[in-house]
Amino acid sequence: MTAPAIPTLPAIAGFIAAGGSPVAIADAALARIAAWDDPALFLARVDPHAVRARAAALAAEGPRGRPLFGVPFVVKDNIDVAGMRTTAACPDYAYTAQEDAPAVARLLAAGAVLLGKVNLDQFATGLNGTRSPHGTPRNPVVADCIPGGSSSGSATAVASGIAAFSLGTDTAGSGRVPAMACNIVGLKPSLGLVPTQGVVPACRSLDCVSVFALTVADAAAVLQAMAGAAPEDRYSRAAPPSWRAAPAPQPQWRLAAPLPAQLVFDSPDDAALFDAALARAEALGGSVTRVDMAPFLAIARRLYDGAWVAERTAALRGMVEQRPEAVHRVTLGILRAGLDKRTVEAWEDFHEAAEARRLARALFAGVDILLLPTAPGLPSLADLAAEPVAANSRLGTYTNFVNICDLAALAVPAGFRADGRPAGVTLVGPAFAEARLAGLGAALHAAAGVTLGALGAPVPPPPAPPDLAPDEVPLLAIGAHMAGLPLNPQLRRHGGRFLHAARTAPLYRLHDLGNRPGLVRVAAGGVAVAGEVWALPAAGIGPFLAEIPPPLGFGRVTLEDGTTPLGFLCEAAGILGTPDISATGGWRAHLKAKETS
Amino acid sequence: MTAPAIPTLPAIAGFIAAGGSPVAIADAALARIAAWDDPALFLARVDPHAVRARAAALAAEGPRGRPLFGVPFVVKDNIDVAGMRTTAACPDYAYTAQEDAPAVARLLAAGAVLLGKVNLDQFATGLNGTRSPHGTPRNPVVADCIPGGSSSGSATAVASGIAAFSLGTDTAGSGRVPAMACNIVGLKPSLGLVPTQGVVPACRSLDCVSVFALTVADAAAVLQAMAGAAPEDRYSRAAPPSWRAAPAPQPQWRLAAPLPAQLVFDSPDDAALFDAALARAEALGGSVTRVDMAPFLAIARRLYDGAWVAERTAALRGMVEQRPEAVHRVTLGILRAGLDKRTVEAWEDFHEAAEARRLARALFAGVDILLLPTAPGLPSLADLAAEPVAANSRLGTYTNFVNICDLAALAVPAGFRADGRPAGVTLVGPAFAEARLAGLGAALHAAAGVTLGALGAPVPPPPAPPDLAPDEVPLLAIGAHMAGLPLNPQLRRHGGRFLHAARTAPLYRLHDLGNRPGLVRVAAGGVAVAGEVWALPAAGIGPFLAEIPPPLGFGRVTLEDGTTPLGFLCEAAGILGTPDISATGGWRAHLKAKETS
Repeated sequence: MTAPAIPTLPAIAGFIAAGGSPVAIADAALARIAAWDDPALFLARVDPHAVRARAAALAAEGPRGRPLFGVPFVVKDNIDVAGMRTTAACPDYAYTAQEDAPAVARLLAAGAVLLGKVNLDQFATGLNGTRSPHGTPRNPVVADCIPGGSSSGSATAVASGIAAFSLGTDTAGSGRVPAMACNIVGLKPSLGLVPTQGVVPACRSLDCVSVFALTVADAAAVLQAMAGAAPEDRYSRAAPPSWRAAPAPQPQWRLAAPLPAQLVFDSPDDAALFDAALARAEALGGSVTRVDMAPFLAIARRLYDGAWVAERTAALRGMVEQRPEAVHRVTLGILRAGLDKRTVEAWEDFHEAAEARRLARALFAGVDILLLPTAPGLPSLADLAAEPVAANSRLGTYTNFVNICDLAALAVPAGFRADGRPAGVTLVGPAFAEARLAGLGAALHAAAGVTLGALGAPVPPPPAPPDLAPDEVPLLAIGAHMAGLPLNPQLRRHGGRFLHAARTAPLYRLHDLGNRPGLVRVAAGGVAVAGEVWALPAAGIGPFLAEIPPPLGFGRVTLEDGTTPLGFLCEAAGILGTPDISATGGWRAHLKAKETS
Repeated sequence: MTAPAIPTLPAIAGFIAAGGSPVAIADAALARIAAWDDPALFLARVDPHAVRARAAALAAEGPRGRPLFGVPFVVKDNIDVAGMRTTAACPDYAYTAQEDAPAVARLLAAGAVLLGKVNLDQFATGLNGTRSPHGTPRNPVVADCIPGGSSSGSATAVASGIAAFSLGTDTAGSGRVPAMACNIVGLKPSLGLVPTQGVVPACRSLDCVSVFALTVADAAAVLQAMAGAAPEDRYSRAAPPSWRAAPAPQPQWRLAAPLPAQLVFDSPDDAALFDAALARAEALGGSVTRVDMAPFLAIARRLYDGAWVAERTAALRGMVEQRPEAVHRVTLGILRAGLDKRTVEAWEDFHEAAEARRLARALFAGVDILLLPTAPGLPSLADLAAEPVAANSRLGTYTNFVNICDLAALAVPAGFRADGRPAGVTLVGPAFAEARLAGLGAALHAAAGVTLGALGAPVPPPPAPPDLAPDEVPLLAIGAHMAGLPLNPQLRRHGGRFLHAARTAPLYRLHDLGNRPGLVRVAAGGVAVAGEVWALPAAGIGPFLAEIPPPLGFGRVTLEDGTTPLGFLCEAAGILGTPDISATGGWRAHLKAKETS
């Protein structure tokens, strides 16, 4: 059996399910590394024998339900892997990690197979991928362009098909710009959702471990495997359970986009590609409102001019003050600027950041997702060399504010310019809205008319809406709460989401209590009753029930498929003297019969 | 009718309900101001005619449900009142406020009557009350001691019976130390719960508007009236609905106190008074665990040595740099120290603060409340004059870390030293745990053997537990979920809280389904069934119901008192063939009969 040519998670899982071995997958990844032959990609490889041994050990164990079983990945070389050097692309800074970063440990526990550690803009400072003493990883999609940074190698390893996914980091856009550059997906999780322990700090208070993958669904699955507070991580946060909701489309996205005058692009093509992405979002059922981005763009400028420069400097002060010659020239200039900043001025930045977070909360009270270009455009290697600081800064136009404002973001491909350079669109939402972003992101990606990375394979259709999110419970509606009937808005107000039509097992009688039906289980003579299964947040059941007058309540209803969702049950005493309408088969049919009679 | 001598909220409400007029209350307050005759108390009074006019206008309108109807209060003069000067005790800084601070506006809307603006340590910098060009407000409880600060006037106005409550501010203890000094209650709410708009900044990111009152219940009521996010306040936060739970005792408090070796006191009496407070907490059903306070004490030191000094300086930079002669000598020294701080070092403070918050989260995952002395002891005016900085710093030993660690705190009186100086105990909990603090705080205050402020009146008993918090719903348990029975832990796990025993209306039959009863409403021949009403968070009903197997569900049950809580109902089909045990009157009686039979 041949390992899948396109290493998406479903392809690998399918291969395993069909009897394929993780060893074959590992061999395919090793072969791709050899074929790709980019000396600027890996800063340290896991020895191929060790990779095969790990895969063989997994094969011997079997999947045991592990979600990333046999999946090859790489990590940015500012993240610790036990026993390997962590260099942050600065050989003089390097140390040997004693422990895996929690993010890495969780991925390994989920069955993933590590191929090695990859290149980056030194100290994760930069958005372009050229600020490394080890050269610039080759962009697999358009060879004369930058690969993006700082997670340069993480992105090219995925776009070239070597790794099914990779870890990057993102403080100001390092998990998003390279995704655009390489025509792949980049997911920057909420602050504190993935522990940053074992990560070389850039701005510790803003750093995130990020995910690159070929598809949105894969990125979301990797995040699920590595998210969760680590007890010793001071920047970990408890996430609301809803963040684990499966990515799902929704009918009426409320979307925001910047005022047209606030949008800057490198070319008319870049502008047209963003407009096309907005049009696709509208075609998917979204309504786009234009919003003023000025406060967000303003706070973004402070990231490299203000207090947060000094946060980078604080993390690397020993290097800057004692071994400046070991630091990349451009990076050193940035870090040195942080030495002189005064705290009395930093507070202006912090108060402005608090204001920007307030404005972001206000924005997302009214919209679900903010759509932005991932960057104004992708520079060529020559462009970047000509203006190493200015061109880099421009790349952060739409990314820099996101972490300061405590937001989550998902970068997805948005097509290609006529000259072949890729463009991207980034979906931004409030903290812990990753599932919402993934729902629209997968649909936008599938509609973008692109192929995966540099691999030429079609984008898979977005996942079907899941039956139930982890925090939801099913509820059978059998009366006026069904879609289109008078009480349906009440159900929706408590978070209800239509799943499917259904029928009860033939164990019930249905009565007409006036403006609503009463369902009663009987020992004999029962019929099947038509209804609809809706998903409700478990937390919404109580408030909903509090609004339901007797003789109705909630209990377990047995459906013809054998499942037992919650449902509306009626006290037996409540149906005395009311018409038995079981023969109609359900409330809708009963209403129709009444209408026509 | 004479206005109440002790102006607590219930006394004032009772006076009004008995036909008393807000004008009489205002007159009494004005008379107390005259009798108290402290030229260092008010920095600006509302003209007595205007106070009486306001009271008369209220009298004409009637209460209209306003919770602070006719209640006289004062505000610290670093909080804006429209049309009055805000001075922060620095005449050269003063400005005339155009608008009420939202906190003040909400209190006025709740019917409170403003008497004026009171003295403070200049720019709210200090914990002692002597750092004002307007003199030191007189301590009503022990005249040769400091009144505490920075909210000095706010505390003395309440302790002397002039105001029923007052607003202070609290950045490092300014809402707690004066409460101890004056034998009253000081409530420092969670960061962002009360808007700080219209407050002269000390450390904007840590500032809180605080409440002084004679009783815990009064402080809690005032907080309820003024809390809630303001849309334009960048430091406002959305509070979980549970924060509004009414203060209530609970049977088994999990309490923490510092390791004995980490406690410092001014005198053996102060130590003994704290030990006695701990003993009272244990007598009230608490269990006290000793915890390591070292990390919290360490972060506290950074408040005046590190980045947050510069935050104070940032807020007043114009004064410090351009009009230093207008600033209090001691305060100027503190503020000047903030000018030279470097941001690269500030980040060490911030990362340590993040670590302290993490440790606080870990602490409060295991305990409900941390009990601390409010201060090591109360200095005399002479003590403070001898060591104006050191004695002040010592006052902040147990208060300084609280705001940095994102905690809520409540200072209550804890008795008197043999030399007559008051002592205090502070209850500390996680953000938005104000109701929890008030529950234990009221009980500790009532048990402390003190009287109110300087007024000689007894402390009222703690409020009875409320029937229901706003986010709770009542549920009638009739079987194994009742207290002490096997499924009761399941009910508690979903947040259940016992309210009272109850009986249904005589409309039901009870059946024995094996290990649990089934309650069915019947058209005739029903009996009353014994049960227990429990309060459950509405959000817990759904998850609880999801664990209840058929034929049981939740619906409305009618009690003999006519109320209709949720309850366990049984499908009629589920009782077929099971024993009717209605004659026993309830599941407990049935179990007992089975035992003895």
